[in-house]
Amino acid sequence: MRVAIASDHAALEMKAALVDWLQDAGHDVTDLGPMTADSVDYPDYGYKLAEEVASGRVDRGVALCGSGIGISMAVNRNPGCRCALVSEGLSAKLSREHNDANVIAMGARLIGIEIAKDCLDVFLKTEFGGERHQRRVDKLSAPSFEGVSA
Amino acid sequence: MRVAIASDHAALEMKAALVDWLQDAGHDVTDLGPMTADSVDYPDYGYKLAEEVASGRVDRGVALCGSGIGISMAVNRNPGCRCALVSEGLSAKLSREHNDANVIAMGARLIGIEIAKDCLDVFLKTEFGGERHQRRVDKLSAPSFEGVSA
Repeated sequence: MRVAIASDHAALEMKAALVDWLQDAGHDVTDLGPMTADSVDYPDYGYKLAEEVASGRVDRGVALCGSGIGISMAVNRNPGCRCALVSEGLSAKLSREHNDANVIAMGARLIGIEIAKDCLDVFLKTEFGGERHQRRVDKLSAPSFEGVSA
Repeated sequence: MRVAIASDHAALEMKAALVDWLQDAGHDVTDLGPMTADSVDYPDYGYKLAEEVASGRVDRGVALCGSGIGISMAVNRNPGCRCALVSEGLSAKLSREHNDANVIAMGARLIGIEIAKDCLDVFLKTEFGGERHQRRVDKLSAPSFEGVSA
């Protein structure tokens, strides 16, 4: 699978470990950064990753920050992405079966590397369930709002 | 505080319990539904809640579904919302301090009601940290993408 990964400075070490793990598992990995420990803004990397996934240049995305919360918000701004923030394998499984998640977000300061690898493994291996879930997923691709004001 | 809450059919019981708890705590609660156990699509309720929060008609939102994943994706489509999917209090706290989250998402089939109340309590009581976090939050209000294709 073609997998893109991005993070902020807080998740640099987890990103490096997951890049190695993905490559060892035979995936084609694109590391979107950052490449140094300098402080960065998670939305910049979340948007970059979201575009890579939404454009179809990769099959799946991995989004990391300290808690996983900020970068998951950023990725989900893109209607072509369905980003699931998870901290255990069952949520990773459900995110694929029910939501056809194409990006997984995790918090490098909240979970350890072995839990992260397990979540990612389940995320990459689980198929979407289709059927009644398809209609809901389609609605996520076409969001509708009125009177939006940030 | 003015708090709006919405769910899908899987989280109807948790929604009812949290509505009672919020009202007992003195909050002004708007229940956006659903009101029956009929199967519904989480994006519909997520978008409705997102609009209520983004418009400023309420101060905070509570989004519930089976895993919390689907409805958190839907709410985060709205650039006026910052929705944090949480399953424990520390993430609820960090979502306020770092991300100025205005919506909390939880999975009714994954966490129990007492954990949900604790997360909600922390979410409502914790202040945003500002400073370096403000610049990142501002970027979440103005997402930028190229070549988006669902």
